[in-house]
Amino acid sequence: MMEVKTVDILIIGAGPAGLALANWFRNSSINVLLVDKKPGPTRRGKAEGLKSTTNEIFDSYGIGPQIATESWRLEEIAIWGQKKDGKSGIEREQLIQDKVEELGKVRETMLQQSRVEYHMQQNLLSHRNITIQYNTQPVDVNVDESLLHEDEVYPVEVLLVKTQVHPEASSNILENSTPYTADGAAKEVEERIRARYIVGCDGAHSWLRKQLQVQLEGDLTDSVFGVVDLIPKSNFPDLRRVCYLRASTGTILLVPRSNKEVRLYIPVESGSSLSDPKELTFDRIIDAARKIMSPYTLEVGAVSWWSAYRVGQRVGSHFSRHNERAFLVGDAVHTHSPKAGQGMNTSIQDAYNLGWKLRLVLQPHHKLDSDASRRLLATYESERRPVAQDLISFDRGYLKLFAAPSSQFDTEFLQAIKFTTGLSIRYPPSCAVQLPKVVQTAEKLGPSLLKADLVPGKRLPDFQAVYQADGITTWIHKRLQATGCFRVIVFAGDLAAHQHLSTNVQKLGEYLADPENGLGQLTAGGEAAPVEVLMVHSANREKVELLELPEVFRPWSDNDGYDYWRVLADAESVHEGHGRVYERLETDPEKGRTLVVRPDGYIGAVLDVDDFEGVGKYFNELGMLSK
Amino acid sequence: MMEVKTVDILIIGAGPAGLALANWFRNSSINVLLVDKKPGPTRRGKAEGLKSTTNEIFDSYGIGPQIATESWRLEEIAIWGQKKDGKSGIEREQLIQDKVEELGKVRETMLQQSRVEYHMQQNLLSHRNITIQYNTQPVDVNVDESLLHEDEVYPVEVLLVKTQVHPEASSNILENSTPYTADGAAKEVEERIRARYIVGCDGAHSWLRKQLQVQLEGDLTDSVFGVVDLIPKSNFPDLRRVCYLRASTGTILLVPRSNKEVRLYIPVESGSSLSDPKELTFDRIIDAARKIMSPYTLEVGAVSWWSAYRVGQRVGSHFSRHNERAFLVGDAVHTHSPKAGQGMNTSIQDAYNLGWKLRLVLQPHHKLDSDASRRLLATYESERRPVAQDLISFDRGYLKLFAAPSSQFDTEFLQAIKFTTGLSIRYPPSCAVQLPKVVQTAEKLGPSLLKADLVPGKRLPDFQAVYQADGITTWIHKRLQATGCFRVIVFAGDLAAHQHLSTNVQKLGEYLADPENGLGQLTAGGEAAPVEVLMVHSANREKVELLELPEVFRPWSDNDGYDYWRVLADAESVHEGHGRVYERLETDPEKGRTLVVRPDGYIGAVLDVDDFEGVGKYFNELGMLSK
Repeated sequence: MMEVKTVDILIIGAGPAGLALANWFRNSSINVLLVDKKPGPTRRGKAEGLKSTTNEIFDSYGIGPQIATESWRLEEIAIWGQKKDGKSGIEREQLIQDKVEELGKVRETMLQQSRVEYHMQQNLLSHRNITIQYNTQPVDVNVDESLLHEDEVYPVEVLLVKTQVHPEASSNILENSTPYTADGAAKEVEERIRARYIVGCDGAHSWLRKQLQVQLEGDLTDSVFGVVDLIPKSNFPDLRRVCYLRASTGTILLVPRSNKEVRLYIPVESGSSLSDPKELTFDRIIDAARKIMSPYTLEVGAVSWWSAYRVGQRVGSHFSRHNERAFLVGDAVHTHSPKAGQGMNTSIQDAYNLGWKLRLVLQPHHKLDSDASRRLLATYESERRPVAQDLISFDRGYLKLFAAPSSQFDTEFLQAIKFTTGLSIRYPPSCAVQLPKVVQTAEKLGPSLLKADLVPGKRLPDFQAVYQADGITTWIHKRLQATGCFRVIVFAGDLAAHQHLSTNVQKLGEYLADPENGLGQLTAGGEAAPVEVLMVHSANREKVELLELPEVFRPWSDNDGYDYWRVLADAESVHEGHGRVYERLETDPEKGRTLVVRPDGYIGAVLDVDDFEGVGKYFNELGMLSK
Repeated sequence: MMEVKTVDILIIGAGPAGLALANWFRNSSINVLLVDKKPGPTRRGKAEGLKSTTNEIFDSYGIGPQIATESWRLEEIAIWGQKKDGKSGIEREQLIQDKVEELGKVRETMLQQSRVEYHMQQNLLSHRNITIQYNTQPVDVNVDESLLHEDEVYPVEVLLVKTQVHPEASSNILENSTPYTADGAAKEVEERIRARYIVGCDGAHSWLRKQLQVQLEGDLTDSVFGVVDLIPKSNFPDLRRVCYLRASTGTILLVPRSNKEVRLYIPVESGSSLSDPKELTFDRIIDAARKIMSPYTLEVGAVSWWSAYRVGQRVGSHFSRHNERAFLVGDAVHTHSPKAGQGMNTSIQDAYNLGWKLRLVLQPHHKLDSDASRRLLATYESERRPVAQDLISFDRGYLKLFAAPSSQFDTEFLQAIKFTTGLSIRYPPSCAVQLPKVVQTAEKLGPSLLKADLVPGKRLPDFQAVYQADGITTWIHKRLQATGCFRVIVFAGDLAAHQHLSTNVQKLGEYLADPENGLGQLTAGGEAAPVEVLMVHSANREKVELLELPEVFRPWSDNDGYDYWRVLADAESVHEGHGRVYERLETDPEKGRTLVVRPDGYIGAVLDVDDFEGVGKYFNELGMLSK
């Protein structure tokens, strides 16, 4: 009889989505198996653009610096159009900074998918609870419906087929033991896995999606794209800027990469003789590019990758099935054109949304009961499906912006890049996004293109502050490592100048540490606590003594003394200017504010600074206080 | 008969100095052998502070980001003294920012020596011309005096003894083949090496120094230091700041490290019962620290390293011998107290000063004749010996500053940190540091504590500028990779507004590319050229077209098109503010200026922007135009 292995989570697909999901389970006891039919990590080509919101995820995984070092920054965008004087050829119409003022930092960088995968994969290596197994594909899945409402069960059963290859022929660097046949030939071995949860991160042709009978809704459009990564030898003056080129002969989106390379995206209009991807050869793509760029030259240097493909604009009917035991993430459940550089970003962000919820549900301590678990896991679909739908609506209109720039082009473009950066995402109310009662019905909740602000369901805007203890500068999303814990961030205001604020901090400190109301159990335990309490004050740093604040803001460990990095100041940094946190977050230093921030950096609740009960209510509704 | 291997350079000692020296020979055909008697890289403890000038060296070696990511930043300094009211105990007297305004960036970071060595060593791995051999010590050296004036000879002969150990017992990760005895016991094997040059980077007890009969001049002082790296459990409020603590019972220099650790330096006064390092046990160091920190508590958490040692303040009589065939670098030729955190920095900077000179002399193309070679190599001693002497003079007075802070404390302290950062270093005139004739005699050349400025012999002040081609921001020392090439940096001024400046740039471009005057041979050849020509203009970027500038500023390669990264603008960066280069360097945008910058980032010559001949004269006097 075949032995059956059990795992907590089985992830199908070790691309950006699968690896981003697996990264949530570092430093936990949750057992994760990633399988992929590929023989090893992706080597080249494919997705490339990284938005700042995705780079914040890498920061929270501790791999931000490595990825930033290798990435190519994008700073300027040039719009080129047909010459206005009726002559043939193109001319530069506009030069735009690739900048969203309120972000306060670089909005977009370029790094090829293979390197992004590499860093996420390296980050898993020392974690024995996470295994990646290449050359492995699932062939059958069953979910036992009778077990769905039970805890501590493994309702998902999957049959895997592992193609065993000679180790030297395999680039499978993470698999420890690969038996192989004597002559080194591929051999197939079956393996049966039982899992608590299964997640399909298996791309546009997702096997799991088909098994779960999830339909993709929307059009398989006629859009065919040619994509080429090459070193151009050319006298075109804007090769090192992002360029939108519009000529009578077609359009190009040109994006600079490292190593003197550029990427050219060339959409082929429907009805064209090239609208079948199979017809779109490399030479034809380059011919089309030459015609568009004329009279500038284009000679081809080294070519590192090229591809031609047809794009579908579709969203899955469901993002989860079987009572939140099976999930679909990334390309497996939505596809769209590469025009706005969204593919890899949205996949990673889907995974980031799901991961902490699974971690919270599977955490041995402070575990939610089965109702609370399902309620939380159901927010994956309610939060991420509208994002995919909005993306496709946006995608449809995106190129129109460039086709005939209007007089409001600058404003429209800025709104578009805010959208593609993810700044307009706002998750709807749920157990994890709680609105104050008064606005629960009144407020409109559609996607907003407003300035990044403190609203439940929106990402916490990143900001720069200074640690009270040592004057070192940090950005808040670098501080919010992906450990699975929630944060209560107390914007305590100018507590040196206002007695009511310092009194409040004392009371809040007591409330948050109180074992009676249940919060004390959530905040105790140092780095392993499910809730970490932080403060950002706006007082003169020299008038605040860290060790005089309530202990929840600088907990003691018998092992290594105080935690010095929970209290930040909105102050001038020694070397990097003033973060102006209160101003940017429109928070009154005389009043303060308390935020509950979810493990994924999204805002769970916005409370008055003296609304102690509000904090308790948030964790109670989530089910974390229920035992 | 014993086989004799030949190498271009034999380096004794693979610590910070030896590794920094070896890094100069990456991407060259120069053969380098590093030997060290240690069984492998340093593991812990020892030196730690990195000044910005040292971090610039890491940037030029391409390992700046990795080192910065691991380093701990220092932002604030607290001065503590005996309570003024006569009561026992200490109180905070002053809080100072660790900042030098004109640097425009972080002045000091902390990273332990073992990690610094690790990154420098990793950076050599892919370079087959550089070998590191551990478990190896030299036992005999001979320099054949009859060969000293010849080219293409190997006048240095060294007998090495290699202790062969079982590979599993060895941490020798770089040596490829270590034969060993059948029982795994250590075995000694002799090896004879002939080298063109030998460099002793073998520390305070330098073997090579003794062989070269170089005397250390100065005192072996009575200063004994206890040093401890530990996690303190303490209610002292400034544990995360650099602290100078002065109590009636003694003084402590406290420096925060990563992982919640701090380093304590505790000098023991002469005449004390503890002035013999052997008597200074860990418990005694901690007892002394407790008394000084009282009434604050100090409990000991994890201890990662501690040591006690006596400090000599001494400088070698010579830094090179045998007609510039043998050199001494770093601790091998000067020692001083750890108070100003200079040990590792000065060693690395010594090596950085010597490396490019050896590279230029050994370069197969554009090689200097033997007179020019010796003249250049002699500048190692004339440039670095005064630095070591100044350091010791400074060292003697340094703690006085803190012992009884005067009313000018702030000013004195700022001057002191400028000094320890290396900003006051100014190399004397030589073939590599050329003064305009008019000032050659008139100007005083001693170390100056003036604002960083454009003076021959001083380090090029680092500055932030924006690439013309893509708007990407860089700091100039990040741009000046250690390839061995000189740079001619043309501060072309506002060439869009002033006809005389744009005319000048055209003429200068022609002159620098002219094969007739010899400069054309130095500037041709793309990345392999011995001289790279850069421009920093102050014009409106939109009014400058890169491809309309002379080709020397954007050379073409048949392989990969134009070089887009030789022209920079003094302009507002999209995401990082304005570098204000012309203002900071006090350069008139209507006049401009031309600099010759040496491969080590020091200024070789400062010229009027139309002084074309001055550029030729510089390379001619250096001997690079002599053939």
